[in-house]
Amino acid sequence: MPKGKPLFVPNDGLTTRQRRHRPLLMVHTGNGKGKSTAAFGLALRAWNQGWDIGVFQFVKSAKWRIGEQTVLERLAALHAETGEGGPVEWHKMGSGWSWSRKAGTEEDHATAAAEGWAEIKRRLAAERHQLYVLDEFTYPMQWGWVDVDDVVETLTNRPGRQHVVVTGRNADPRLVEAADLVTEMQHVKHPMDVGQKGQRGIEW
Amino acid sequence: MPKGKPLFVPNDGLTTRQRRHRPLLMVHTGNGKGKSTAAFGLALRAWNQGWDIGVFQFVKSAKWRIGEQTVLERLAALHAETGEGGPVEWHKMGSGWSWSRKAGTEEDHATAAAEGWAEIKRRLAAERHQLYVLDEFTYPMQWGWVDVDDVVETLTNRPGRQHVVVTGRNADPRLVEAADLVTEMQHVKHPMDVGQKGQRGIEW
Repeated sequence: MPKGKPLFVPNDGLTTRQRRHRPLLMVHTGNGKGKSTAAFGLALRAWNQGWDIGVFQFVKSAKWRIGEQTVLERLAALHAETGEGGPVEWHKMGSGWSWSRKAGTEEDHATAAAEGWAEIKRRLAAERHQLYVLDEFTYPMQWGWVDVDDVVETLTNRPGRQHVVVTGRNADPRLVEAADLVTEMQHVKHPMDVGQKGQRGIEW
Repeated sequence: MPKGKPLFVPNDGLTTRQRRHRPLLMVHTGNGKGKSTAAFGLALRAWNQGWDIGVFQFVKSAKWRIGEQTVLERLAALHAETGEGGPVEWHKMGSGWSWSRKAGTEEDHATAAAEGWAEIKRRLAAERHQLYVLDEFTYPMQWGWVDVDDVVETLTNRPGRQHVVVTGRNADPRLVEAADLVTEMQHVKHPMDVGQKGQRGIEW
């Protein structure tokens, strides 16, 4: 929900309109549920605005397909058919990135993650999308598969009006520092705590 | 993301499958962004499973229409046309609930909230939906517009396989106690802090 008023009006030489439309770097971190779910919820809003959306899932499982992918790809097809909403590209690391599927790539997660980030850098430079969902991208950052300073510098200096949302636990402090909007999803209680496994429709 | 294993297997007489498919009462609370966004993201998953979804927005603004409503109503229309996904009903308090629109109702938020809850109770008793999104429902609870004990008892004893997600700040401790899954979205940083207003595609 939009809140009423900002706490103060900064002396940054921008009009309210210019300030309002600055592109955002957003981070959903913390040990609780809802980080990715809220990011895909943002993608819904973006689709409704007709934005061009790129989703990049940095997940290890090759076969995994979440409900959001099916729905957002359906919405992308609707866009192609009727012009409603915007286009959506959904890429995931597990089975090899779709733009460069090569045999064996799926075996080496570090290489695959670095390739994913290199492609995202190219797209940011080309102003390819209006919203980037970098799902679970904190993990390759944490594990040294991509260079954190390179990520932070690239995201900070991205051209044009490109929004980016990064999800995952343990967001690097440098990423948090660079971000405009950071929410920590804190685990308070989860069915897993009392022995219930994840279920269809809720967890995926 | 589904986690691998629960921490322990409870001695509750249920099979893993039975336990897995227990309906959940979920709460997204805290002062950060993403509570409603993650709830509507859950609705995406639910739609993809073909579930019947009821959204009840307990918001004060009559005219407000968020992107998620447009998209989920579009998905509902797609369901009606092609059978894909599930049906979605979207109700909001601001302009009078759509099932009982009366002149003047929108002026009295307390009455409107109580009417909304009464309808939700009827639907829960009738097992009308598979997922209920009670958006910003913590506020009428907090303000005494609905009886918290009645809400908690009704949700705890709801029949069948009905999932419920409640969003809003300051969730009542009794609701948290009754819930299966609680996430606190904590505000770490928001553009509003530095004088940037909410923007289209991000906040709505």
